[in-house]
Amino acid sequence: MKRLILASASPRRKEILTQLGISFEVRSAAISEELSGPFQEEYPRILAERKALYVSKQEPDFPVLGFDTLVFFNGEVLGKPRDEVEALATLEKLNGNAHVVISGVSLAYQGKLISSAAERTEVFFRQLSKEMLEKYVASKEPLDKAGAYGIQGLGAGLVRCISGCYYNVVGLPVAKTLEMLEAFEEKYD
Amino acid sequence: MKRLILASASPRRKEILTQLGISFEVRSAAISEELSGPFQEEYPRILAERKALYVSKQEPDFPVLGFDTLVFFNGEVLGKPRDEVEALATLEKLNGNAHVVISGVSLAYQGKLISSAAERTEVFFRQLSKEMLEKYVASKEPLDKAGAYGIQGLGAGLVRCISGCYYNVVGLPVAKTLEMLEAFEEKYD
Repeated sequence: MKRLILASASPRRKEILTQLGISFEVRSAAISEELSGPFQEEYPRILAERKALYVSKQEPDFPVLGFDTLVFFNGEVLGKPRDEVEALATLEKLNGNAHVVISGVSLAYQGKLISSAAERTEVFFRQLSKEMLEKYVASKEPLDKAGAYGIQGLGAGLVRCISGCYYNVVGLPVAKTLEMLEAFEEKYD
Repeated sequence: MKRLILASASPRRKEILTQLGISFEVRSAAISEELSGPFQEEYPRILAERKALYVSKQEPDFPVLGFDTLVFFNGEVLGKPRDEVEALATLEKLNGNAHVVISGVSLAYQGKLISSAAERTEVFFRQLSKEMLEKYVASKEPLDKAGAYGIQGLGAGLVRCISGCYYNVVGLPVAKTLEMLEAFEEKYD
């Protein structure tokens, strides 16, 4: 397989690709994450495409994977909280409820988009006391996470169950990504 | 909270409890894992109870958690494969299909059972070529795993999606375990 480039500096995505036994290099994509329009569920795929294409234009000889992950609740995008107050407010929304995590994944090569997809995982939170949510916020874990929790950390204790791909919630839809790489390999290697 | 004892030497269960920020000590339970009767789906809970009770009788002053995890496919228990041939045969059964992972969790205290439950997660495998399954077996990862795969390792690449608790597939049903510990704390601390 050709050398693969990951257009993401996320340590969690690097960990998952490494876990899968895939070799890669990292190039960050300096793209605008501004989007508008009513089709919010399309945003992760659109942003993943922008990232993959940005890096592919600089590194046309190698396949480039781009990703983006957003947390949706009641039609609203829940981003990374600005502070502990916003983290607690976000967790109080998710508490006892179901929400959706959508990751986009895109593969670009020679400056062109090869394939692009989105994966959707439903996450069901346990019903926790305000005291327990405050204790979680005090751990600081929510502060750099979309939706104010990390399912791969202490935040595992907030979740009752999921429906879909677990790694998609962490930030990388494993099955979709592997299918994309396998199809690329078949065609281009 | 009173000092907690984990009646399991499984490194994966230790990792998950540590991830949840829970302090504990490990005591292995030397129990018979032999079971008979048609109620196979009850086995993980029964074995978890045996383990928790065994250790609780030796350490009556502390709450003891016992676990057991089994993989079921078409009414058959898929244990740890004896060798690479059996690992491949197991993976060929799971390939492209759904199977069920059931973990039992039990809490014992003062030599008596306090609570006991089972958690069920459905796992859907991707459709993989025999060559890919053989490559996975060659990694040796399947050899010490019930069902011949580890979702927390390279085996993540075999799975399309799940329905239920992810950590239950790894060996520890997080939400059920925390609920049990929280109820115990409320009553005994």
